[in-house]
Amino acid sequence: MPEFAKRMEYMAGSAEIIRGLFSAMGDPETISFGGGAPASDALPVEEVRQIASEVLAREQRGVEALQYGPVQGVRQLRQIVAEKLLAPKGVMADPDDILIVNGGLETMNLLCQVFIDPGDVILCESPTFVHCVEIFEMFQAKCVGCACDEQGLVMEDVEAKIQQYRPKMVYVIPTFQNPTGKTLPADRREKLAELGSRYDVLILEDDPYRDLRYSGQELKPIKAYDKTGHTVLANSFSKIFSPGSRLGYVYADRKILEKLMDAKTATNSHTSMIPQILCAEFFARGLYEEHLKKACAIHKERRDAMMAALEKYMPEGTRWVFPDGGLFSWVELPGGIDTTELLKEAAAAKVAYVAGAGFFVGGTGEGRNCMRVSYGNVTPEKIDEGMRRLGALIRSKL
Amino acid sequence: MPEFAKRMEYMAGSAEIIRGLFSAMGDPETISFGGGAPASDALPVEEVRQIASEVLAREQRGVEALQYGPVQGVRQLRQIVAEKLLAPKGVMADPDDILIVNGGLETMNLLCQVFIDPGDVILCESPTFVHCVEIFEMFQAKCVGCACDEQGLVMEDVEAKIQQYRPKMVYVIPTFQNPTGKTLPADRREKLAELGSRYDVLILEDDPYRDLRYSGQELKPIKAYDKTGHTVLANSFSKIFSPGSRLGYVYADRKILEKLMDAKTATNSHTSMIPQILCAEFFARGLYEEHLKKACAIHKERRDAMMAALEKYMPEGTRWVFPDGGLFSWVELPGGIDTTELLKEAAAAKVAYVAGAGFFVGGTGEGRNCMRVSYGNVTPEKIDEGMRRLGALIRSKL
Repeated sequence: MPEFAKRMEYMAGSAEIIRGLFSAMGDPETISFGGGAPASDALPVEEVRQIASEVLAREQRGVEALQYGPVQGVRQLRQIVAEKLLAPKGVMADPDDILIVNGGLETMNLLCQVFIDPGDVILCESPTFVHCVEIFEMFQAKCVGCACDEQGLVMEDVEAKIQQYRPKMVYVIPTFQNPTGKTLPADRREKLAELGSRYDVLILEDDPYRDLRYSGQELKPIKAYDKTGHTVLANSFSKIFSPGSRLGYVYADRKILEKLMDAKTATNSHTSMIPQILCAEFFARGLYEEHLKKACAIHKERRDAMMAALEKYMPEGTRWVFPDGGLFSWVELPGGIDTTELLKEAAAAKVAYVAGAGFFVGGTGEGRNCMRVSYGNVTPEKIDEGMRRLGALIRSKL
Repeated sequence: MPEFAKRMEYMAGSAEIIRGLFSAMGDPETISFGGGAPASDALPVEEVRQIASEVLAREQRGVEALQYGPVQGVRQLRQIVAEKLLAPKGVMADPDDILIVNGGLETMNLLCQVFIDPGDVILCESPTFVHCVEIFEMFQAKCVGCACDEQGLVMEDVEAKIQQYRPKMVYVIPTFQNPTGKTLPADRREKLAELGSRYDVLILEDDPYRDLRYSGQELKPIKAYDKTGHTVLANSFSKIFSPGSRLGYVYADRKILEKLMDAKTATNSHTSMIPQILCAEFFARGLYEEHLKKACAIHKERRDAMMAALEKYMPEGTRWVFPDGGLFSWVELPGGIDTTELLKEAAAAKVAYVAGAGFFVGGTGEGRNCMRVSYGNVTPEKIDEGMRRLGALIRSKL
């Protein structure tokens, strides 16, 4: 067989982590805090069914849904992104500067296609979202982690590493971060946008969780502080409409967006039309506002159940993040417990999580005593039972 | 702004051709033989509407359609590919060796991610599908065209160029080729598979048009002759179900497929679930067979109308391909007419086609007097009127 490309070696490690992450979701008896799915109960199945049944009956819309579509995405959906999702957050976007992509992650892939040559440096949070690291590594980028405190990225370290490494971009998940659940405060958002402009570095803002907020004050995206076009805003409909629809969008400076469209054309021509039209109609009918309230209520209950269960079952010395929204908390265990080693016993006890070490780039060994727990798609009763199992296992190790 | 990656320079030329191709579709008064869409009249809009309305009403299927899904694609759809689309053509595939992708083109992108380092050589037909050349160039591959005669790729030239260039792969559209409409005969298919095995070169068989056959004998795919796993079969639901759904599939040796799945994960996680489920259900309900008959009847009438119009309106000395299926014919004009230069006047005369030169790699200047004409999404009446306009314009130049 012909040799694989060099990039496949670079991504081998992270690809294995990702495969493990997916396969852990198999056993129905296991209570899984792995994955990153929102609540299945919060999916607008009946609304989508009704929209499909009505919209496809209109001849022109039916043909539009099944025929080839524009590379950039359905205009109605881009308008909705600009008016209903960005403008209320202080980001004034022209729909022509928005590209609809096949799920939020595709933006990271396309932006790498446009900007990353082998050896280019990408700064990221430490820990960060391993799935995106896999993408960066496939493009043979060198990922460098930056220090984080309770509020996320530490700006002094970002600036020092920009000076040291001259990176092409800084990848950041500012709101209810994956994997930690932390949120970057307003002053740091402003500072980060400014660092991008000052040092001519792209700030890749990945913000899929922001609308799932259960407490605290809403914050403007980093993009709202951007004065030079150096910040690229990536977002997704996965958490506010449906993950399986694979719908995301990117808002960027026009020069960047044009190149992203070329890369999109050379990746898969355009995003599937049926989900785009169903999603656009969902917003156009005013169903989103009510749906979001319901989704937040469901997830808030789960967040609260997770916080209560951590309090109830975890041994003394355990620390965790109280997330104001999103799907994740980050747990640090006492007593030098290695969460990667613990995984097998956890599987036997029918409970799953994601071990912390995989979220750190560069194999520093950090995060070995940490785990990401997702409460998004687990009912409050199961959260209590799962954390009871996990707590008992951890206590047995101390 | 930070510098773009080197790959963006490589793809600049083909990207411009593609952008031109898309923008030509704008004016509603223009009769366009550009594009590559199947007939809008042949899209199963009402069937899809009914399936959506019924399938999403089943609670489990509704959640499956909206929640995250498997990287490899919906199992039911992979089974349908194996049983209903591949087995009848002599290709016996395990559904676990099939990956569902976001439109047929995505396979070319993923296969490049897995195999192509900058400078690797890809052999292709001359002329070939420019959209795939764009993908190959984005991966900084060197594309080398091989000689074609009336029956497509000439095996002697392919073998000589394999020996000369040591390519990673040979890209071929064997049935009703894009752009020429030609079909590779059985003996050459067998030979090509054998060349892949003998020289350790991948044969990338892109076969999206094969089921739109209006005359002649059906032929086995190249993959049916492959004994070593060197042939990778890429196909698409665009021409037999719906282009806008962006559904395609790839069948490959398991070692290759595993790497393709890693690349897919790092591209967009998985293909959109709603279209996959609607398409699977479309086949499961037995609607495909009747639909294909209807689609073939509609397209055959258009193929015949195009052949009649070419005969009626083109000046003496014009040559064209009689395609046994698919959407394209390839027209060679007499008298040294440059079809790229003619485009502006054609636009003024409200008729569009794709100029031939863009389909040849390496800027050889070949195909300057050629054009690709697509009859897929033009009614017979408009085919006659459009070719009348085009014929008059061409005659005025002689």
